Amino acid sequence: MRASCILLCFFMFLAVSSAYPGKKKQYKPCKEFVLYFHDILYNGKNAANATSAIVAAPEGANLTILAGQNHFGNIIVFDDPITLDNNLHSPPVGRAQGMYIYDTKNTFTSWLGFTFALNSTQHQGTISFIGADPILVKSRDISVVGGTGDFFMHRGIATIGTDAFEGDVYFRLHVDIKFYECW
Amino acid sequence: MRASCILLCFFMFLAVSSAYPGKKKQYKPCKEFVLYFHDILYNGKNAANATSAIVAAPEGANLTILAGQNHFGNIIVFDDPITLDNNLHSPPVGRAQGMYIYDTKNTFTSWLGFTFALNSTQHQGTISFIGADPILVKSRDISVVGGTGDFFMHRGIATIGTDAFEGDVYFRLHVDIKFYECW
Amino acid sequence: MRASCILLCFFMFLAVSSAYPGKKKQYKPCKEFVLYFHDILYNGKNAANATSAIVAAPEGANLTILAGQNHFGNIIVFDDPITLDNNLHSPPVGRAQGMYIYDTKNTFTSWLGFTFALNSTQHQGTISFIGADPILVKSRDISVVGGTGDFFMHRGIATIGTDAFEGDVYFRLHVDIKFYECW
Repeated sequence: MRASCILLCFFMFLAVSSAYPGKKKQYKPCKEFVLYFHDILYNGKNAANATSAIVAAPEGANLTILAGQNHFGNIIVFDDPITLDNNLHSPPVGRAQGMYIYDTKNTFTSWLGFTFALNSTQHQGTISFIGADPILVKSRDISVVGGTGDFFMHRGIATIGTDAFEGDVYFRLHVDIKFYECW
Repeated sequence: MRASCILLCFFMFLAVSSAYPGKKKQYKPCKEFVLYFHDILYNGKNAANATSAIVAAPEGANLTILAGQNHFGNIIVFDDPITLDNNLHSPPVGRAQGMYIYDTKNTFTSWLGFTFALNSTQHQGTISFIGADPILVKSRDISVVGGTGDFFMHRGIATIGTDAFEGDVYFRLHVDIKFYECW
Repeated sequence: MRASCILLCFFMFLAVSSAYPGKKKQYKPCKEFVLYFHDILYNGKNAANATSAIVAAPEGANLTILAGQNHFGNIIVFDDPITLDNNLHSPPVGRAQGMYIYDTKNTFTSWLGFTFALNSTQHQGTISFIGADPILVKSRDISVVGGTGDFFMHRGIATIGTDAFEGDVYFRLHVDIKFYECW
């Protein structure tokens, strides 16, 4: 059972007659923090620094240039450093590992499946994310579907934003992780 | 905490002595609706209409024809219109985005990882799905692992069925989404 | 609502004043069992026995040999037999289906997205897994993000270990599945 429920259940039970039943109610995260990760895409020339690579592409495209129609059909595998601030050169607190898929022909969207493997004095454990990412929207929500270690059985929402980018080669993502189910 | 628990917890607590402990018990969804999505696979000739593309294939296969052994090893990336009824030309209420993988050599099965991004007067938000799809079975269950917006923190089961198909190029999926955890 | 909560909620409510709030508390699984699965990777010569295939690779690599830098960028699709013991030739109780991605250049790690489709007298249903797999670590945790059938709405943690391997062609995984949310 979720530890967070022990007290909350009781207070919410007391409060039930006045609880607003509408769907616009706001929940307060039981845990929240912000992390950044940095993706440097392999372009045929930056093997030493690249943290990600195109590994699948639609017919006619290649693996060193993102595909033509808003990169539709590219799958990128990544192992990106995670930092506490927005500086690529800050000491990493873990790695963001998994893949993203460009999945629309007439705009930029991607589908994300990845895991944060955190290994610092502050956090030990993994957090797994799944979701659709409408890249051009300033701030978008994806699902936190599971966790291990310090994040055992956690679930939540991550609000992500593209913090910076340089052409097709570098981008930095700001990830505001809000857990609503803590154990 | 889940809003659905506030009252239910109390009533189930009252009812605990008579609750049937067996695993065959039936749960009632806290929210349920049906949607359709439509997939038109790129075959080298239908670039204008195609909503999906083969982007990975096993050795010896290509990206305009599904692979030989029950398409084993093909990864398809898609951005498919979602409709309220089974008509491809109905106004879309959102997009189904992600991938499916053909993953058996001697029959048709796939592994699904995708998200519904819904944007209509009725629904705003995302629903993410993961699961194994034994395609030839009439009705099969996959997991709803997370949601955002109107589906904030939701979980459930989606029962999917192939509603129609035309060769390798078009199929339509009937998706009965049943949420059992609503917030 | 989770069936496991009916009694537990009540006892935890009684015990709330003495509950230890620290994060090191131990939860007891509501269901636990061990399964094995066996992966035989296609290498260009073992088509008859292979249960998996490389379907994506970074630039310069091919689909019959795992890629150079710790296989970084390879996506493998699999349909592997699941057994109750560690014998490849034991009668399978289901299939492990999905994909793994090698996602680090300077060590062996992978990202897993797969589902157990179980079909035996003991278990009927699916269990879906997502997570980062630091392959060289003896025992590592991934997330159980959903289930269907006997595992309807379940969540938990799977502790996996490489039980055996033979070069790049065969490996066997020991999977200790612990559900902490049973319905």
